[in-house]
Amino acid sequence: MNILVINAGSSSIKYQLIDMNTELPLASGLVERIGLEEGVVKHKTFVNGEENKITESFPIPDHAVGLKRVAELLTDEKVGVISDPSEIKAVGHRLVHGGESFTDTVVITDEVKAKVKELFPLAPLHNPANLVGVEVAEKVFPNATQVGVFDTAFHQTIPEKAFRYALPQKFYNEMRIRKYGFHGTSHKFISEKAIEYLGNKDAKVITIHLGNGASMAAVKGGVCVDTTMGMGPLGGLIMGTRSGDIDPAIIFYLTQQKGFTADEVADLLNKESGMKGLTGFTDMRDVEGNFVNGDPVAVLAINMYVYRIKQYIGSYAAAMNGVDAIVFTAGVGENKTPVRRMVCEDMTYLGIEWDAEKDKIRDKDVNEINTDGAKTKVLIIPTNEELEIAKQSMELIK
Amino acid sequence: MNILVINAGSSSIKYQLIDMNTELPLASGLVERIGLEEGVVKHKTFVNGEENKITESFPIPDHAVGLKRVAELLTDEKVGVISDPSEIKAVGHRLVHGGESFTDTVVITDEVKAKVKELFPLAPLHNPANLVGVEVAEKVFPNATQVGVFDTAFHQTIPEKAFRYALPQKFYNEMRIRKYGFHGTSHKFISEKAIEYLGNKDAKVITIHLGNGASMAAVKGGVCVDTTMGMGPLGGLIMGTRSGDIDPAIIFYLTQQKGFTADEVADLLNKESGMKGLTGFTDMRDVEGNFVNGDPVAVLAINMYVYRIKQYIGSYAAAMNGVDAIVFTAGVGENKTPVRRMVCEDMTYLGIEWDAEKDKIRDKDVNEINTDGAKTKVLIIPTNEELEIAKQSMELIK
Repeated sequence: MNILVINAGSSSIKYQLIDMNTELPLASGLVERIGLEEGVVKHKTFVNGEENKITESFPIPDHAVGLKRVAELLTDEKVGVISDPSEIKAVGHRLVHGGESFTDTVVITDEVKAKVKELFPLAPLHNPANLVGVEVAEKVFPNATQVGVFDTAFHQTIPEKAFRYALPQKFYNEMRIRKYGFHGTSHKFISEKAIEYLGNKDAKVITIHLGNGASMAAVKGGVCVDTTMGMGPLGGLIMGTRSGDIDPAIIFYLTQQKGFTADEVADLLNKESGMKGLTGFTDMRDVEGNFVNGDPVAVLAINMYVYRIKQYIGSYAAAMNGVDAIVFTAGVGENKTPVRRMVCEDMTYLGIEWDAEKDKIRDKDVNEINTDGAKTKVLIIPTNEELEIAKQSMELIK
Repeated sequence: MNILVINAGSSSIKYQLIDMNTELPLASGLVERIGLEEGVVKHKTFVNGEENKITESFPIPDHAVGLKRVAELLTDEKVGVISDPSEIKAVGHRLVHGGESFTDTVVITDEVKAKVKELFPLAPLHNPANLVGVEVAEKVFPNATQVGVFDTAFHQTIPEKAFRYALPQKFYNEMRIRKYGFHGTSHKFISEKAIEYLGNKDAKVITIHLGNGASMAAVKGGVCVDTTMGMGPLGGLIMGTRSGDIDPAIIFYLTQQKGFTADEVADLLNKESGMKGLTGFTDMRDVEGNFVNGDPVAVLAINMYVYRIKQYIGSYAAAMNGVDAIVFTAGVGENKTPVRRMVCEDMTYLGIEWDAEKDKIRDKDVNEINTDGAKTKVLIIPTNEELEIAKQSMELIK
């Protein structure tokens, strides 16, 4: 069975066609610069272990034109990987914000679309684009079941004491201001892999997703009990351009004493802070390069980045009364980096002990990088949100 | 030797005259409603184990009039506890914000006053009032050495990775935006008592100050390494009217989508949130009353309050690679409350085990309330900020 996974942004569509028999992609790609003068389609196919790339530039006025071209490429006589669009049984859509309406993956109906629309104010950048992706896919793949997988769904099990903020009641009751959390598909995917690896369905797992966006989750017996992102994707860990947690008094200091508008502070914290603010670099690889050379600016930035992660490990161990495994994933979490070593440093009180040699080998689904006999497992598990979306879509249409 | 301790607010002066031979107060009191039509002086004396109260109402146009009346009461022929103001060797002032300029207690000079003035923008509500208190005391007690004890000083040892925020460099370099922390005098006082009690100068102690304002500190070998309040006293724990930590995205959601101004959100988070926002009650005793009766609003609020404390215990254990003792202090921390029990629940992974019987006895300087043989001590240590200020003042003038 083939499932197409779509992640639609405001001017882009990321996609992957997955053969669920092998759980491997047949094709993947990115439609970019939608609505601009010149659009781009970067398409890759994977046939008999061979990777082929096609890049096309042409005006792509809207998402529909982009996705139609993807459908043509997938079924193209020469480069196609399937012969007819009807071979795609389901399209799994990454939908960012499910609010409190969606605790699980759903078949997309008119009612679902109406609810996603209602949630626009909670995710004004993401949900409208996601919905365009759905509506276009319905037209281009009319025989496929459209499935919605929400980034927030996995976190809907977080207990009220952890998802509520200490604001007057009406801000929750009327405005639904609460912690939602994001990256849920990734946290679900890697925590399930970890639980399977540990062979303990009650395991207490802390998942650490370190990409350009970054978040952590506390998962107890497969159930998410807390996560670092809040109502939006700004809080928690230090990210590429986002500040993560910050004393709210600073925001008011800037508006009341330094002449900033609230919008300017919002832009500052979302787009100019994090690693970019501290070092000038958004990409952790650049920061790490300078860190290795002993640049004090980079050293401080990485120390701050690591300290925040360590604090949340501590916090989530307290939330679960212990921890059986911590799991690193995504760009920074999976690749060559001093971060894993530094996070595990001076954490013996939790039985966390990092092994330098094991850290060099990252070739399996689950890579154990703690010392032999350490009480708490330290794991690297490559995340695969597309596969997780495809799996959940398949389960639903079965 | 007698030392007068003064805590001057915008319309009040809290004071205590301490006999440093016994470390007990000779007199204490509060001048209130300064500048209003009718002011109040509430004065107490403690002579030969007898407590006497005097309450006076009269117009108190400024701090000088108020403090002069206090001096008269202290030296009054009938109710006085000393015969001449010159018997007061030092006046110890509680000063809220020392910025990065003050890492320790200082004799107040013109230079010190100028620096306190420079820090007005960081503590616009507190530092100006504190300085008025200093200037008035200089006139009323010209023979006493004026000493400044800063609420932020104890936290100045916090390492940069913990006191910096992930903002562009200039926000620290030019605007000094960083974590300062408050309640330092209390955290210092109780952490020193704990270290002495434990008989281990390297002890890792987590201090939990739960008053109307509330904060925690991580103290390793007597040195503060982190604290929950930030640049201002808004962040961290849930307080009487303050929200504590909150996803900064919520602030922008309110300004961008709900028509709030930044000032309105600042007022909301400082004055209408915390316990007041969640339950309608500012005083934890009221909330606890309803909690005991099973009121779900109070149950949620206390659960949130407790969960935040537990998370910071975890976080600070991670910061110090373990913990030897957690210490409760101040109103909620010292008195009858379900909070201590609930904080200690399900914390066995850190060796924290609470003893119901021991919790009932709180009659010593240091009260141990963990079970016999528990790995981590749980202590109640009544705080005494006035005595700490007096002690530090005495040490300085010796």
